[in-house]
Amino acid sequence: MKIHKPVYYGDYLQLPKILNAQAPESAKHGNAAHDETLFIIIHQTYELWFKQILHELNSVREIMSKAFIPSTDLSVINSRLERVTTIQQILVDQIQIMETMTTLDFMEFRDFLVPASGFQSLQFRLVEATLGIKPQHRMEIEKQFFNSRLKEEDRKILAETENKISIFELLEAWLSRMPFSEFDGFDFWGAYSHAVDTMLEMDFEIISNNPSLFEPMKSMELKNLEMTKQTFATLLDAHKYETLIQPGKIKLSQKAMLSAVFIYLYRDYPALQMPFKILNSLVEVDEKFTTWRYRHAIMVQRILGTKIGTGGSSGHEYLKSTTERNRAFLDLFNLATFLIPKSMIPALPVYIKDQLDIVYDSFQP
Amino acid sequence: MKIHKPVYYGDYLQLPKILNAQAPESAKHGNAAHDETLFIIIHQTYELWFKQILHELNSVREIMSKAFIPSTDLSVINSRLERVTTIQQILVDQIQIMETMTTLDFMEFRDFLVPASGFQSLQFRLVEATLGIKPQHRMEIEKQFFNSRLKEEDRKILAETENKISIFELLEAWLSRMPFSEFDGFDFWGAYSHAVDTMLEMDFEIISNNPSLFEPMKSMELKNLEMTKQTFATLLDAHKYETLIQPGKIKLSQKAMLSAVFIYLYRDYPALQMPFKILNSLVEVDEKFTTWRYRHAIMVQRILGTKIGTGGSSGHEYLKSTTERNRAFLDLFNLATFLIPKSMIPALPVYIKDQLDIVYDSFQP
Amino acid sequence: MKIHKPVYYGDYLQLPKILNAQAPESAKHGNAAHDETLFIIIHQTYELWFKQILHELNSVREIMSKAFIPSTDLSVINSRLERVTTIQQILVDQIQIMETMTTLDFMEFRDFLVPASGFQSLQFRLVEATLGIKPQHRMEIEKQFFNSRLKEEDRKILAETENKISIFELLEAWLSRMPFSEFDGFDFWGAYSHAVDTMLEMDFEIISNNPSLFEPMKSMELKNLEMTKQTFATLLDAHKYETLIQPGKIKLSQKAMLSAVFIYLYRDYPALQMPFKILNSLVEVDEKFTTWRYRHAIMVQRILGTKIGTGGSSGHEYLKSTTERNRAFLDLFNLATFLIPKSMIPALPVYIKDQLDIVYDSFQP
Amino acid sequence: MKIHKPVYYGDYLQLPKILNAQAPESAKHGNAAHDETLFIIIHQTYELWFKQILHELNSVREIMSKAFIPSTDLSVINSRLERVTTIQQILVDQIQIMETMTTLDFMEFRDFLVPASGFQSLQFRLVEATLGIKPQHRMEIEKQFFNSRLKEEDRKILAETENKISIFELLEAWLSRMPFSEFDGFDFWGAYSHAVDTMLEMDFEIISNNPSLFEPMKSMELKNLEMTKQTFATLLDAHKYETLIQPGKIKLSQKAMLSAVFIYLYRDYPALQMPFKILNSLVEVDEKFTTWRYRHAIMVQRILGTKIGTGGSSGHEYLKSTTERNRAFLDLFNLATFLIPKSMIPALPVYIKDQLDIVYDSFQP
Repeated sequence: MKIHKPVYYGDYLQLPKILNAQAPESAKHGNAAHDETLFIIIHQTYELWFKQILHELNSVREIMSKAFIPSTDLSVINSRLERVTTIQQILVDQIQIMETMTTLDFMEFRDFLVPASGFQSLQFRLVEATLGIKPQHRMEIEKQFFNSRLKEEDRKILAETENKISIFELLEAWLSRMPFSEFDGFDFWGAYSHAVDTMLEMDFEIISNNPSLFEPMKSMELKNLEMTKQTFATLLDAHKYETLIQPGKIKLSQKAMLSAVFIYLYRDYPALQMPFKILNSLVEVDEKFTTWRYRHAIMVQRILGTKIGTGGSSGHEYLKSTTERNRAFLDLFNLATFLIPKSMIPALPVYIKDQLDIVYDSFQP
Repeated sequence: MKIHKPVYYGDYLQLPKILNAQAPESAKHGNAAHDETLFIIIHQTYELWFKQILHELNSVREIMSKAFIPSTDLSVINSRLERVTTIQQILVDQIQIMETMTTLDFMEFRDFLVPASGFQSLQFRLVEATLGIKPQHRMEIEKQFFNSRLKEEDRKILAETENKISIFELLEAWLSRMPFSEFDGFDFWGAYSHAVDTMLEMDFEIISNNPSLFEPMKSMELKNLEMTKQTFATLLDAHKYETLIQPGKIKLSQKAMLSAVFIYLYRDYPALQMPFKILNSLVEVDEKFTTWRYRHAIMVQRILGTKIGTGGSSGHEYLKSTTERNRAFLDLFNLATFLIPKSMIPALPVYIKDQLDIVYDSFQP
Repeated sequence: MKIHKPVYYGDYLQLPKILNAQAPESAKHGNAAHDETLFIIIHQTYELWFKQILHELNSVREIMSKAFIPSTDLSVINSRLERVTTIQQILVDQIQIMETMTTLDFMEFRDFLVPASGFQSLQFRLVEATLGIKPQHRMEIEKQFFNSRLKEEDRKILAETENKISIFELLEAWLSRMPFSEFDGFDFWGAYSHAVDTMLEMDFEIISNNPSLFEPMKSMELKNLEMTKQTFATLLDAHKYETLIQPGKIKLSQKAMLSAVFIYLYRDYPALQMPFKILNSLVEVDEKFTTWRYRHAIMVQRILGTKIGTGGSSGHEYLKSTTERNRAFLDLFNLATFLIPKSMIPALPVYIKDQLDIVYDSFQP
Repeated sequence: MKIHKPVYYGDYLQLPKILNAQAPESAKHGNAAHDETLFIIIHQTYELWFKQILHELNSVREIMSKAFIPSTDLSVINSRLERVTTIQQILVDQIQIMETMTTLDFMEFRDFLVPASGFQSLQFRLVEATLGIKPQHRMEIEKQFFNSRLKEEDRKILAETENKISIFELLEAWLSRMPFSEFDGFDFWGAYSHAVDTMLEMDFEIISNNPSLFEPMKSMELKNLEMTKQTFATLLDAHKYETLIQPGKIKLSQKAMLSAVFIYLYRDYPALQMPFKILNSLVEVDEKFTTWRYRHAIMVQRILGTKIGTGGSSGHEYLKSTTERNRAFLDLFNLATFLIPKSMIPALPVYIKDQLDIVYDSFQP
């Protein structure tokens, strides 16, 4: 490496551009509102962080697109996903800064911004699409909210990303390639089924004998248990499983789901530690966006009540409705249903264990 | 003051009691589960904080019970409420500690705890009752969840607190005593109405002319605006207002609500700074509990899926449903609807201003 | 207001500028380092927040520059300072994002950035100067670190701000204008002195009789107490006070300091609630920057060890040394020394109380 | 499992004990200070969390005491350490609750508590001892502060723990057992040395040619670089290394340190992912306690100024001095010095790589 031209902090960060990109609309209308600067700057930091999140997710997508993911890349994938969740925590916490703005002050410039709206954030929709949210996963009302608002050119960029393979799809493919849905000479899923049955019988006893559970609660709980039983049955029956895929109640294929369950159960084996961490990080990414949407909806309602926002509509009801939606990895989040107590997990035959382990021969005496 | 007997840290904090109060059930059944200690200790810290919150709320209730609240007590009230919200932030953040427990590890001791449940936290219900949640505000399902589970003696303690005057009721009385619902020789509420009309007309223009708002969204928004108009009309019409009180859509009396709106609008005057901060802190107390319930529900679902918890029921759906409920000060949270841009707030006559101000004669040159 | 041209989110926020301002140096040298993007973006968000902090501080300076600060402006000043501390909390928390970058990854592009350095952040130095840090307050080593690194044009901008009146100076003037250093017909400071003496005598008893305090600790503590006594004596003696001002051990004038002590003691009176909150917020601003510098120094050491950073020097020792420095309001932070137990605070005569109070005649029955 | 006796929430958590363990001293002296309850309760939560931390650390110590640590236990160790750091974050954040207490209110009951002091927390000292802080690592002043204050029985318990093997010692033994200090047929440390030399030469060029680095800074930096060079030389020379061990400048043995460096460099290999995470978590545990001590010292100074605390001494100077001390894993924190850019890390021969990898034969097509 040769010595290069000296770099100056402000030039390197292109601060003349960055710090001259705040032009309050209220000032243009002759009446600068003090708080509009905050409104602009906080949104700009959000967009910068979205760019960083896209940078990480795109690199994860690229690595996962390899026909064979090298084992040393798994920790790279996980580190980058953990960076995303660290950023998301700041996105959530930043809402406290926005909450220092009062209704009275926001109303001073709201009208000048119509119909600009956070729904027009192209980058946020690219993040969703990269994770795995496709147009068919969106509610009708959401499509209306969104699509008419994006500029033609932005709609095109979004469509391109939606047409690319998503991290969800790559994850599914990776999980499906794993050899955990059946084993030669060992009926793992039979043993697992047996453990599940034992657990559910125990649950039945617990509900039935609970002295503080009266009707109609008790019947409700027994019905609930019956449904949990059905859910387990579905997991292991390819045909029944298909009936959940069709209407979109579940997105992950059966084979991928079985691998995920296996990884969750045997996560302590060296071979599964990093795969488990990756699954867990993806659930975390989803969950953090959910928390962000929720906190955001509450903040909007607190500042606006039932008033319209800059987008010209009173979005608070809609905002709350999306809290639970647009989660690419909801199936993994719900996977807890399929887990059983540690002590009931079937013991693995030595030849499988060996494959999941690392023989630290020379590392230990 | 005389010199007292030396105090020893461990005795002062009664640590022998505190640190010997963890008896895992799993150990009693011959199979100590490592994570049960965490489960016990985190709940004990929650209960200690609830005790502290009750200590603060009870003192606030006591001060507000005076026939005349001295002006120097207002900042005491507010400091104590701000302490409550600071504690609540930790209650929310602590959920991250609980989330370090996995489904597999929780299932190891869950069965031993049935039917104990967080719904049996007497202190949490005392907090709600002290703030203003009375039995009639609870959903039918919630009463079933709760009441059968509390011990007879705990039910009695709860009933006593529910029968006492709550902070909500004291706040309402205090706001009602204020002289803001009408002024001699100044039609404030007429001037306010006029400003509201101007604002709503502007909103009508904005929605009508919004180029990116298509049908059926536009009609929805116009209907929404019509409702906001009705809400404003209700505020100023005693008869209409009563129609909201009856079915419980609103809890605060009209007179109290008008005072609250006045305080929000003129909060910068010295006389209203502390009253505003108190209203704001109460909204914050409500909001933080809401966030806590939400994060808690998500955490339970992530650990349990659709499985039953220690209470013997799968509470996640119910937990989510309460997120928006049990807010004593919801009317204040929704008050943003009644606010208008700072520049449209009616100017006050000098004789009113003077009463709201402090004449710092001798403090300034 | 007329209906204006529709505003588009991306145009309003000038996203084409903001999101195209990341040009990693490593890429220019033919070897794009994945993590350099994070390095650029996190610094850009820091600079955006510094701009926002300057926006708030400049407005506070402007309001405080009025010959007479209107009472309704005090809560505006305080809200803006509280916004600054809310932003600062995010500045501290963001360090966690930087910590997701490993030494190995940082070393991949560090060399390309030499000699750019955070010490070249003009805006951060403007923040310090606006608060009250003048060149004479900086250590010799700090000046060397800084001045040679700033571009000529940036040095000029900084000098301009350093020559303007700072918030510290405006605060001092405001406190000095207050009528608390002496009262007609009431020897407040005599009464206060008396209370202090009583307290210090009690402290002497406590140290002398402490059964778990052995030599040489006991002598140390008694010497310490003697010094605290001197400090109190200094506060009330104009001549002695001057001896602290000269060498820069204290910056606030005696008259301003007495007002600050008075405000801290009687903060619950309506007239002093907002002044107290302003003092407190300024201490908080200082403290949060101190915490930020500390966390930043630890982060640098964790990533670099004793290696040189992008500025071409191993700044960690220096960074740690500044932790306690550059605090414009250190005198207020240390003011706790002059406070006494609530129950020992002298009662005020009615005519003074009345001036500090608000007569809510018509607000209460 | 048989159905057991129903468990009641309040009994399970032993709430009658926990919630009746707050006896303010001020009340005993006839003058209950409102804020003393907070003082008691916050310290009780701290002690509960210390108990939880000890529970985790003791289990980690137990696992690491095995002659051979099973690979599946590594993720258990790491999960428990990560739980500790999650708890520590709350310990830091909780300081905000303490900061809601003002000097005036604290002074109301401070005197009654003398000479109780946080230095008397037995559990905190057990945490330090379990991590690896032995009496010989403490400063003279610290020993004086501590030892005379602990009760005889508490001193005995502490001594017992100090005599047990610590996590630091177990870590050192584990790292020393690893086969990374030399390899048959591959001069890894020679290759590493070569990379280091190249890097340091580059650093020399950078400092020498830095246009914004003037004297005396430049000479200082070159001296600094020389020292870094010496440090590297020391790492690879058993004799020189010993000269650092003797005076306690470094605690980790050379063999253990080499293994740690190797793990940091090749952390992405499956065999080293979990070992790396464990090292990293231990650094994090240290760092979080350091941050806690620092925030605690600042908080004490803000509340007390130079006044004495409940322990009867003005601890703030001492508190600040310990910020950097009592770190069991300081050597790991400083390890960044020995790291080099990712691209300069020597490539490993296939037979070593294979040992560090997992052959996912059957998992991939």
